[in-house]
Amino acid sequence: MLPNRLAQQIAFIVEIDKLKRILRQTLLTDASRQENSAEHSWHIALMAIVLAEYAPAGVDLLHAVKLLLLHDLVEIDAGDTFCYDLNGNQSKAERELAAADRLFGLLPPDQGAELRSLWEEFEAQATPEAKFAAALDRLQPILNNQQTEGYSWKKHGITSEQVFWRMQPVQTGAPELWPLVEQIVTDCVAAGYLQPAPSVESA
Amino acid sequence: MLPNRLAQQIAFIVEIDKLKRILRQTLLTDASRQENSAEHSWHIALMAIVLAEYAPAGVDLLHAVKLLLLHDLVEIDAGDTFCYDLNGNQSKAERELAAADRLFGLLPPDQGAELRSLWEEFEAQATPEAKFAAALDRLQPILNNQQTEGYSWKKHGITSEQVFWRMQPVQTGAPELWPLVEQIVTDCVAAGYLQPAPSVESA
Repeated sequence: MLPNRLAQQIAFIVEIDKLKRILRQTLLTDASRQENSAEHSWHIALMAIVLAEYAPAGVDLLHAVKLLLLHDLVEIDAGDTFCYDLNGNQSKAERELAAADRLFGLLPPDQGAELRSLWEEFEAQATPEAKFAAALDRLQPILNNQQTEGYSWKKHGITSEQVFWRMQPVQTGAPELWPLVEQIVTDCVAAGYLQPAPSVESA
Repeated sequence: MLPNRLAQQIAFIVEIDKLKRILRQTLLTDASRQENSAEHSWHIALMAIVLAEYAPAGVDLLHAVKLLLLHDLVEIDAGDTFCYDLNGNQSKAERELAAADRLFGLLPPDQGAELRSLWEEFEAQATPEAKFAAALDRLQPILNNQQTEGYSWKKHGITSEQVFWRMQPVQTGAPELWPLVEQIVTDCVAAGYLQPAPSVESA
């Protein structure tokens, strides 16, 4: 028989396999299918390593990577809520809290509390690591949207103004990467992948 | 215009999206489809965090997580080689070296050299971090094979002896987790998911 502690940890590890089935609005760069939240989490964790030099001074990279690897786990029960879906986002917090209770509750109590506090830290957006992690979480989809000629932007009629609003965490958590966001939005509007902001005359 | 360094880093980040299209022999726990190497890399990176307490003394967790996040990148060009495929494994090293040249060559030279050396470290299996990382890389598929009632074991007629041989890196890199391997193999043989080792009489 395995020690109970290890058995609980393995039960958690088996359970989180389900994140591979949670689909996001973003497509893979070849537009072959929707991205899932597990591979998205891998992508942004590796982005944190590649782009670590743009993190604000004092950011602990391991801490940021932990936040990135587990910040989407609650979607296993709560689903992925499209960022521009206002109704879905109203009930999101409640659904995600219940998911956190169940999922982190599979772990030994001390470790469940530790990982849950990391998820809460990401949600609260109060530490430099949480802010840097959120910046990367926002940045990756616009890279994929650019590669897929604005697939999910076109599908939902998103404007550059909405993208700039959605990308604010980049300005907050990784300000050195803000020129990248500006460049991508400018290029995507020019290419017709993204609608320009409504002009003052037409607003 | 973006600085050249950042443009190279973003080109690498966009390119590695292709790892999401590399399919492995392992299925998701619900047997709905094959797992891809990006989501597999996410799973084992998070396993490193959950199972860190079983790492040999002195293992640097961030270093191990970096190895896990990037060790499969070369599969983007070289493909995933099934571990029990002897022919495929003979040409694997050459194909993976060429892949490393191309992929890490997308990055600024200093960073490309740094990430390539991490990949080489994983391959060489000479550091405690590389050994711990390899242990988790081997452990995750047997968890999924158990959940899918031995799908890929049955498909290829794998025996418990072959699994024990394949799992040796667990004994080397995370010996505290070896009883877990023994338990899983015993349970899977008993359940008929995995063929027992040939007996002395029938050999």
